[in-house]
Amino acid sequence: MSKPSSVKTPIIIVNFKTYAESTGKNAMKLAEMAEKASLETGVCICVAPQFVDIAVIASRFSIPVFSQHIDPIGYGSFTGHVLPESVKEAGAVGTLINHSERRLKLADIDAAVTRAREVGLISVVCTNNTPVSASAAALKPDMIAVEPPELIGTGIPVSKAKPEVVTSTVEAVKRISPEVIVLCGAGITNGDDVAAAIRLGTEGILVASGVVRAKDPYKVMVDFAEAALRAKR
Amino acid sequence: MSKPSSVKTPIIIVNFKTYAESTGKNAMKLAEMAEKASLETGVCICVAPQFVDIAVIASRFSIPVFSQHIDPIGYGSFTGHVLPESVKEAGAVGTLINHSERRLKLADIDAAVTRAREVGLISVVCTNNTPVSASAAALKPDMIAVEPPELIGTGIPVSKAKPEVVTSTVEAVKRISPEVIVLCGAGITNGDDVAAAIRLGTEGILVASGVVRAKDPYKVMVDFAEAALRAKR
Amino acid sequence: MSKPSSVKTPIIIVNFKTYAESTGKNAMKLAEMAEKASLETGVCICVAPQFVDIAVIASRFSIPVFSQHIDPIGYGSFTGHVLPESVKEAGAVGTLINHSERRLKLADIDAAVTRAREVGLISVVCTNNTPVSASAAALKPDMIAVEPPELIGTGIPVSKAKPEVVTSTVEAVKRISPEVIVLCGAGITNGDDVAAAIRLGTEGILVASGVVRAKDPYKVMVDFAEAALRAKR
Amino acid sequence: MSKPSSVKTPIIIVNFKTYAESTGKNAMKLAEMAEKASLETGVCICVAPQFVDIAVIASRFSIPVFSQHIDPIGYGSFTGHVLPESVKEAGAVGTLINHSERRLKLADIDAAVTRAREVGLISVVCTNNTPVSASAAALKPDMIAVEPPELIGTGIPVSKAKPEVVTSTVEAVKRISPEVIVLCGAGITNGDDVAAAIRLGTEGILVASGVVRAKDPYKVMVDFAEAALRAKR
Repeated sequence: MSKPSSVKTPIIIVNFKTYAESTGKNAMKLAEMAEKASLETGVCICVAPQFVDIAVIASRFSIPVFSQHIDPIGYGSFTGHVLPESVKEAGAVGTLINHSERRLKLADIDAAVTRAREVGLISVVCTNNTPVSASAAALKPDMIAVEPPELIGTGIPVSKAKPEVVTSTVEAVKRISPEVIVLCGAGITNGDDVAAAIRLGTEGILVASGVVRAKDPYKVMVDFAEAALRAKR
Repeated sequence: MSKPSSVKTPIIIVNFKTYAESTGKNAMKLAEMAEKASLETGVCICVAPQFVDIAVIASRFSIPVFSQHIDPIGYGSFTGHVLPESVKEAGAVGTLINHSERRLKLADIDAAVTRAREVGLISVVCTNNTPVSASAAALKPDMIAVEPPELIGTGIPVSKAKPEVVTSTVEAVKRISPEVIVLCGAGITNGDDVAAAIRLGTEGILVASGVVRAKDPYKVMVDFAEAALRAKR
Repeated sequence: MSKPSSVKTPIIIVNFKTYAESTGKNAMKLAEMAEKASLETGVCICVAPQFVDIAVIASRFSIPVFSQHIDPIGYGSFTGHVLPESVKEAGAVGTLINHSERRLKLADIDAAVTRAREVGLISVVCTNNTPVSASAAALKPDMIAVEPPELIGTGIPVSKAKPEVVTSTVEAVKRISPEVIVLCGAGITNGDDVAAAIRLGTEGILVASGVVRAKDPYKVMVDFAEAALRAKR
Repeated sequence: MSKPSSVKTPIIIVNFKTYAESTGKNAMKLAEMAEKASLETGVCICVAPQFVDIAVIASRFSIPVFSQHIDPIGYGSFTGHVLPESVKEAGAVGTLINHSERRLKLADIDAAVTRAREVGLISVVCTNNTPVSASAAALKPDMIAVEPPELIGTGIPVSKAKPEVVTSTVEAVKRISPEVIVLCGAGITNGDDVAAAIRLGTEGILVASGVVRAKDPYKVMVDFAEAALRAKR
């Protein structure tokens, strides 16, 4: 896998989405907190800011930066699209693909995973259930993040509401492509949820509002990271 | 599998697309020829006409009728969508899903396959290459039809231009879901192409212009069916 | 305009969507009620069933049949699409375009309106507010049906909740293309709503659940039709 | 209009698309040339780089920067989307909307134009023909850029191949919304094409490969700018 040395498991990927709390200057502050929490705990905390904020965050902070999406394209006439090469050159080390808020056609997920591989971006394909996770596994991305869409942003963690989705996803993915790393997401708000996710067989989490919209995102990230370490032991 | 007794392998599915030669009254003539060729050869020849032509063809002819697409929806507020239940009630026994001219998002393919299963429609997921075929196999449709899009409508058969796509697809699909039937398509114009497809491990073909736009579609279908029988032996 | 003689204002278009109450055999019953209500009141009541039900309804009943959608395509390789010619040959006299549940890209609305004109289908472009109605008017469809999406299916009629949307739409459309007929929809459940819509300057309504899911759809349609006549006087 | 003082007509907008020649470091070089050509000629030359390159270009160069696209969204849960506020905060003064390579649904163009207005971005809606330009005019964007898609990237200028598209677009747009500025694009490679565009009634051009992939983009931009000035006199 084309993982930069800074990316290791357990991994916490913080999706900035398009929240006010994680746009522009606020995105810088949040990335700074993530860096501090990562340095303090030794856990890999990655951030996935908006496209326009990737370059500045990647140049200022030592944490891995992910894009929220790439288009399955190469150099050419693709106005308004997200070119994998440009994201890479801006300093990103990886990218989400097929987030539930930015779903792609199957052939385009395949092409995007291939393009990520070609330019050296870690690919994290988001999925909504076990069969779709199995399906994504056949495309051999670096990671799969399963997130039941009905739980996203609810504060009800998938590890409690639907633990069987997590365990069956890990099993299904590993059966098809054992080398693919499985993460889970949706509704995660505290360390217990993170620990539960890891005990269910994942190697990390994808989180958004649970960190971004928390009163003290730094504290939450430290809590998450410490719980991930404890669960991993 | 929910296959009606009339669906058996080797199978030839004729996709009517939206050709002038296969719309409305012309669709009836073509379905009549397909029925005749099927009765004469004993080979299962299915037709996939446009939505508006499904009901009349299904009521008049004894051959299996497929829809060209279904939407992953149930009863409700979905103006302009194709409800699996309505296609079924109109007399279809199956449906194409994710044809290269009507590609779907991954989560929607999963949902459409599930909906097809629920209402008793045979699902044929179309794919563009081996990884995508493997990916589709994880969703456990009844059939997968691999068609390299760059060959569709060219008259250059996939079995000659890219035989390795066919063999690797069969292998990849069977490894993940052994019960899924594999078809191939694109560029098929004569019996030799059909025989080659079957010798490469498929159980039939998906064809469009090679039949629909032929000078004598009936003759072509008989040629295809006889070649399929010979190759199967 | 290419209106068949049977289409006249005030007009009531009943959108069958994909409701259980308006699929297959139920669609036939509903069309029969619409025909009866139309014959009894003399008001033009049109039905927009699902694609697969168009042909049978158009052949059995004397009321105008609309498609719920057409694709901006001609004869060719468009698997799973809705060809204007096929809808016309199946007996439809018109089509909805850009319903809020099946929104299209601007260039495709333009192309679909052109295609409808070419094959002789009445085009009814659905819109969500006044600027979009004005925008649609510039494309010169036969009719525009404005429906605030937040009111669809609520039972709260646009004529009461947002009368200014109706009046400003009529004004904006007529300023740009005076010959375009304006309808309104969303939340209409009784004759008073229909009368209000017409008094606000429309020439009819687009309705779905208010008729389809009513206890007695026939009675509701007669109520609508009589109210339309009263308001017109 | 919310035009920053630096945006004035005649205007030349250089769309960087996703060409290798205009990505990352190459984007910086091209922006520098555009700035130099603008300072030298006094003509407003704007650049529309990829999302990830907006912030650095906007901070380093004195020319107006446009986004290639915005999504019709506000702050919230929209992973992988382009938030108007983030583009604005990164230093963009305007945005293309509905480019032929990134077409939007009609209701989304309306919403994107509204969002651009709300955050203070100049909106340039791209259109493919005269009716669509008229339709876009009803949404009152700041500018409309008409580009027949079949000419994009051909080197055959719209002003020569289809001058009537330009003149009829200017007329149709001005009839509906006189304050909207009309640009044209597609196939423009030299000063004569620019002069012709302006003599046909536009106030500038939208150009991509004609500048980006030229041997000497700086020289081409100076040529374009001087021709625009001459034609304006």
